[in-house]
Amino acid sequence: MLPTHNRQVQLASRPVGIPQADHFSIVSVPLPQLQPGELLVRNEFLSIDPAMRGWVNAVANYSEPVAIGAPMRSFACGTVVASRHPGYAEGDVVMGMLGWQEYAITDGRPIRRKVREADLPRSLSLGILGINGVTAYFALTAVGRPRPGDTVVVSTAAGAVGSAVGQIAKIAGCSTVGIAGGARKRQLCRDEFGYDFAVDYKAAGFEDALSAATPAGVDIYHDNTAGSISDAVIRRINRGARIVVCGTASVSSWDDWPSGPRVERHLLNKAARMQGFLIWDYEHRYEEAVARLADWVRDGRLRYREEILDGIEQAPGSIARLYRGENDGKLLVRLDDPR
Amino acid sequence: MLPTHNRQVQLASRPVGIPQADHFSIVSVPLPQLQPGELLVRNEFLSIDPAMRGWVNAVANYSEPVAIGAPMRSFACGTVVASRHPGYAEGDVVMGMLGWQEYAITDGRPIRRKVREADLPRSLSLGILGINGVTAYFALTAVGRPRPGDTVVVSTAAGAVGSAVGQIAKIAGCSTVGIAGGARKRQLCRDEFGYDFAVDYKAAGFEDALSAATPAGVDIYHDNTAGSISDAVIRRINRGARIVVCGTASVSSWDDWPSGPRVERHLLNKAARMQGFLIWDYEHRYEEAVARLADWVRDGRLRYREEILDGIEQAPGSIARLYRGENDGKLLVRLDDPR
Repeated sequence: MLPTHNRQVQLASRPVGIPQADHFSIVSVPLPQLQPGELLVRNEFLSIDPAMRGWVNAVANYSEPVAIGAPMRSFACGTVVASRHPGYAEGDVVMGMLGWQEYAITDGRPIRRKVREADLPRSLSLGILGINGVTAYFALTAVGRPRPGDTVVVSTAAGAVGSAVGQIAKIAGCSTVGIAGGARKRQLCRDEFGYDFAVDYKAAGFEDALSAATPAGVDIYHDNTAGSISDAVIRRINRGARIVVCGTASVSSWDDWPSGPRVERHLLNKAARMQGFLIWDYEHRYEEAVARLADWVRDGRLRYREEILDGIEQAPGSIARLYRGENDGKLLVRLDDPR
Repeated sequence: MLPTHNRQVQLASRPVGIPQADHFSIVSVPLPQLQPGELLVRNEFLSIDPAMRGWVNAVANYSEPVAIGAPMRSFACGTVVASRHPGYAEGDVVMGMLGWQEYAITDGRPIRRKVREADLPRSLSLGILGINGVTAYFALTAVGRPRPGDTVVVSTAAGAVGSAVGQIAKIAGCSTVGIAGGARKRQLCRDEFGYDFAVDYKAAGFEDALSAATPAGVDIYHDNTAGSISDAVIRRINRGARIVVCGTASVSSWDDWPSGPRVERHLLNKAARMQGFLIWDYEHRYEEAVARLADWVRDGRLRYREEILDGIEQAPGSIARLYRGENDGKLLVRLDDPR
């Protein structure tokens, strides 16, 4: 018996800055018949990612904004429950841009991959083996280009991407420094994610602590925050440093373009490179990254944390929760089996 | 008869910002005897370059600041008039860090190269075949990495480096847009240096003119200025753009770090790269660049302008003159033969 209705979390109004729960509404819509070439996925986990802020804002971004009344764009993973698509069979586990909804009917194009790591939890396909882990992998290896002995500094170091960057940098032979907010996250950086040093940017004396943690300067800065945290790190870069701009979590809105210290002279004096990272540039190498990440997870060299919210009702407020920094690990929404 | 005295332009006091004539004094000092392993060069042309501002400022830079009482650090070219060094013979023409002085006694280490392009004026070894041309060549080809059809925007487009960048970009099959100050320089960009478009940043409607000149956006920005000119260009970058930070001429002092619009979101949304360029990273490839540049000069594809000031007395005020933008072409000081 195929389902007849589908609950979606739709964008109800366009936020300026960080989307809050009341920018969304949960709506039940009829589920149409499957057409030839389509498949039906029952979503099991929804992914909550910082980039989603940009997907709903009106300003030009790297993708078109989500339309008002459309289900929120999101990575999700789930099981194929019916298929009229030659590439997918009932029972396949898939991950892709399936949106904040119980079911997704798709022609297959939004699906990024089949999840084949049957020995590992499928939720990992949204986190350490998904967009977060793959982002960390390519941002560090392809843009940051670590060399053994480099000092690698990571902001939002205990987060889903940052914690993976720090650990992959250790695997690459680097010295690692994590920047995180609060004593709890700082402790996670050291005890759970193996950073050599961890610095609490919310504590007094942040800049002194950062200096003490980077006596040989900074060779790679994986930047998830922008803002004053980055200003402090950039003052410590070495000759030939690489700054990988992966997120701007500390800046609540770019609708009014914020100001900060100019970087030109830093970059010039150090012949340093500051480069934006978009995962889409590495889509063709996705499986390469997942395979390596899965091996590191299996042998215990790559650890991860998940925070799972239960029920689709948790989705609307989840992005704001992420930006408040309250989550402890990759934030996910788990959907009940609606049947 | 070897000379017994040497007139030097010494740094007399440390400037904040742009060095003015009264930061220097001209002093005659005795010329010591040549020791084994040394050579004596009679300087013929002194090079005046924007980077010299940084060489005298006290703040940390990519090289140690010039000491008070020392001859001003500078590229120069001249003829070997005596040699006790096995690598150099009387009559060799050499170029290197020979300083603002009539004569340089050196062990050879400050010499960058022997000038072998006997069919071309030797002053070119300080400009289009020297630090300016070589900077343009590597900044564009190695950092900017032009592809045919790219739109390349150059600031200080009529200057010694910028004019070469624009012409090399044309040779590489790019569309070129020069930004320069004033109607005269704008005209030079088009008539002399072959830019497809030229924009006067001092004229009203600069941003509109820039937009009109870059209908397909900006793929490479060769940045010699920083400041508001760069802010306008960076707003127009395309996906995968490269911003080559080669100079910061529009910012009069970095002693108080200036603020400006944050670039992180631009770089992230466009997966763009902003990279500082220091010629020292390409020293091992210098002859490769000079050979290509000389060929382009000979076949008329690479044009240059020189403005020559006569007499060592012109040196002290020459950096300020450069920053006032008054020069028309590569600024040089020609020394009389003091014998």
